[in-house]
Amino acid sequence: MPRYEILSEEAIVTLDAGWRRIVSELGVQFAKPEAVELFAKAGMRVEGEVVYLDPDFVMEQLALAPREFDMRARNPANNVHIGGDDMVFSGVYGPPFVLEGGARRDATMADYRRFTMLAQSFPELDSAGGVICEPNDTPLDSRHLDMIFALQTLTDKIYMGNVVSGVNARDTIEMSAILFGGEEVIAETPVCISLINCNSPLRWDDRMLDAQFEYNRARQPVILTPFLLMGAMSPVSVAATLAQQLAEAFAGIALAQLISPGCPVVFGSFLSNIDMQSGSPCFGTPESALGLLCTGQLARHYGLPFRTGGCLTSSQSPDAQAGYEALMTMLPTFLAGANFVMHSAGWLEGGLVSCYEKFIMDIELLRELQVEFTPLEVSEETLAFGAHEEVGHGGHFLGAAHTMERFRTCFYRPIVSSSQNYERWRRDGGKDAAARSGEICQRTLDAYEEPPMDEAIREELEAYVVRRRKELGD
Amino acid sequence: MPRYEILSEEAIVTLDAGWRRIVSELGVQFAKPEAVELFAKAGMRVEGEVVYLDPDFVMEQLALAPREFDMRARNPANNVHIGGDDMVFSGVYGPPFVLEGGARRDATMADYRRFTMLAQSFPELDSAGGVICEPNDTPLDSRHLDMIFALQTLTDKIYMGNVVSGVNARDTIEMSAILFGGEEVIAETPVCISLINCNSPLRWDDRMLDAQFEYNRARQPVILTPFLLMGAMSPVSVAATLAQQLAEAFAGIALAQLISPGCPVVFGSFLSNIDMQSGSPCFGTPESALGLLCTGQLARHYGLPFRTGGCLTSSQSPDAQAGYEALMTMLPTFLAGANFVMHSAGWLEGGLVSCYEKFIMDIELLRELQVEFTPLEVSEETLAFGAHEEVGHGGHFLGAAHTMERFRTCFYRPIVSSSQNYERWRRDGGKDAAARSGEICQRTLDAYEEPPMDEAIREELEAYVVRRRKELGD
Repeated sequence: MPRYEILSEEAIVTLDAGWRRIVSELGVQFAKPEAVELFAKAGMRVEGEVVYLDPDFVMEQLALAPREFDMRARNPANNVHIGGDDMVFSGVYGPPFVLEGGARRDATMADYRRFTMLAQSFPELDSAGGVICEPNDTPLDSRHLDMIFALQTLTDKIYMGNVVSGVNARDTIEMSAILFGGEEVIAETPVCISLINCNSPLRWDDRMLDAQFEYNRARQPVILTPFLLMGAMSPVSVAATLAQQLAEAFAGIALAQLISPGCPVVFGSFLSNIDMQSGSPCFGTPESALGLLCTGQLARHYGLPFRTGGCLTSSQSPDAQAGYEALMTMLPTFLAGANFVMHSAGWLEGGLVSCYEKFIMDIELLRELQVEFTPLEVSEETLAFGAHEEVGHGGHFLGAAHTMERFRTCFYRPIVSSSQNYERWRRDGGKDAAARSGEICQRTLDAYEEPPMDEAIREELEAYVVRRRKELGD
Repeated sequence: MPRYEILSEEAIVTLDAGWRRIVSELGVQFAKPEAVELFAKAGMRVEGEVVYLDPDFVMEQLALAPREFDMRARNPANNVHIGGDDMVFSGVYGPPFVLEGGARRDATMADYRRFTMLAQSFPELDSAGGVICEPNDTPLDSRHLDMIFALQTLTDKIYMGNVVSGVNARDTIEMSAILFGGEEVIAETPVCISLINCNSPLRWDDRMLDAQFEYNRARQPVILTPFLLMGAMSPVSVAATLAQQLAEAFAGIALAQLISPGCPVVFGSFLSNIDMQSGSPCFGTPESALGLLCTGQLARHYGLPFRTGGCLTSSQSPDAQAGYEALMTMLPTFLAGANFVMHSAGWLEGGLVSCYEKFIMDIELLRELQVEFTPLEVSEETLAFGAHEEVGHGGHFLGAAHTMERFRTCFYRPIVSSSQNYERWRRDGGKDAAARSGEICQRTLDAYEEPPMDEAIREELEAYVVRRRKELGD
């Protein structure tokens, strides 16, 4: 399907001049001496933590990054390609709370495992993600071990690495090496992908940079993502925010290529706005949709795989707002052809909540959009002239031979959406989409089967977790 | 904003050959002798009610239709232009039921009036529509008089004409003549637009044709709309359905131009599919979105203003499904640039229900999409470099001068959507989008003011309604 592009050539030239001016005149702050030194060695002017980047140097560094790359999953059927026309979908990332059956509570490790099992159960998701929810009932210093272990054992898909610190990143890499047969193997074809957020505006923080250094050196891809809520982390202008996004992401990508030339990176985007009355973040807004479409066009212009989109919403419950805001982000995500899509399922309440019912609804949206963005076949045969001959004027096609041959597969078959007539719907309990989603969620978990795993590898992973948990003092 | 077009040149050629074959080899049935005679006189082969159309003749007739035209509203500020880059939005059309506060009941004239008042209250709608709901508590034969009178007096926007019969169409025209100063005046610039549905496949019924004849002769635009639920009224193939849609709509447009050469028409589309298990109609489906995008591209190819889209859904309640399905239709409606959009607000349960809460939610979607489809300004000024200079690295833009100057208008301000934090939302009652919409609905009705009207004209309209009601035996 074609991409939907809304920026003129002239606008792209203006935005290009915009990021160049920002990185060269204002510079970008890197709160890690090792990063600053790398830039200084490369000839950049440095003042304290601020690096003043030569835009042409940045472009040279960008040119070192692969335009597309492969990632390997434990199950080869789940390998993915990042870049080009491919789109890769992963689950919600980051929420401290969960919502289930209308009740909101602290997320636990049991929740984390259940969401991971859901992600494994739906082929629409290429990855469960990383921090699908914060398992608040596990010790802070070692919970990354439990999360990585869950992702590695409960799914056989690619997964996202932990980025809380360089130590956590190192553990992720070592556990990945155990699972896939050594660090050399995973350096060849990466197996985990990690989210490195900018502390926008124009500042990369030390802990995130520590993690980035680990992943870049291990040749595991990082998604360098300006974190932009317009009005707070960027100006109240989509154009200004796009220029800032380029400046920040490009600075991060340039660093990645200094750390490890040619290592895989993804141009990240997380762009929405705050409510100017309350200051709270808003998602599924017109401005974020515009930003999203432009981000895709810019990523293609600079030849970088990119991350954006998701089923985002500010809504506090899986209601109509949650439905339309999710699609207000996800439909443009498809129109933009995002290569890596975080928060594809389960996101609620501005990312504070992982919601089971919303997870299922979002799977429905993903399934629908995957059909909607499959090119339409128009040919002599699909015109089905014979069906018209058979049915004639004012007749109906229900029993036509053409229909009978195709009725099982001709249309999208929903999992959540209902077109039951009112009487039947009432007889079946008059359940809304959220209630039906809750039932599907439970059925899916009941039917879940853990993907098979080599027992020796499993034991080695378990031993690693036990040893490291002890070392970390938990 | 650019249009999103997905058909290749080759596909358009195939679809063009498709409709040509249908109209010439299978023909189109017209259940009105006067229509058949017009075609026969124009040299078409006729067998009973079936007219075998020469495709080149059809193209000549299409060329007589204006590519764009103006419509006049009682309030000149509400005049509209149909065609080109313009989009005109009208309310839901046809439901026998209403849903309010979760309760479903037969629609009444009071409901009809309330929905009309809502439509008048929101500038996002260019028209309340026509049969916003069926006022089941008024006599069948004369209820069109009450509906037209309500549309003429409670709103000062354009309205849709009644199409139940030629008699009803005649009443609509005469009441319009009273309101605007004579039939010659409304023939010059039309004031009402009417929906003429095809009894698909390939049959135009007598009562609809009677209405069409009246409106064409009075130079009031008609929207000639194939009524296509794939699997029932057309083959289970989007391509086949698009060819059929062209065949049916073009046959209707050709007739309109025979009745009254040069009269304004709109190429109509109502295209979705049935559930192949239950036979019930589905809306907001991937297939309908694809059909919608193609319809826009085809309409432009043939140089006709077109109608499609709306906030359609199969959902039985204003839940998440209602939200995402509405947008799954409405976002492609904007991408296709539909010139006339029926069912823009209020549609629920496959068009069986006019829902108050859904009406308000749909207005929210319309407002958002109108912002989203406003071209983005990218210029040196919008890059706001000064804001970056002011804020620096790791700061925030909330208090920046650039923000302070723009904070009132910089972002879309929702009416339904909430980004309240959870605690505050709970304190305010924990209301979901449907509940909040119900409150907005009531506030809007409370604040409604009837647009001023010349007393003499109002009395003349009233007298007309009284006289005709008597004549019609009610």
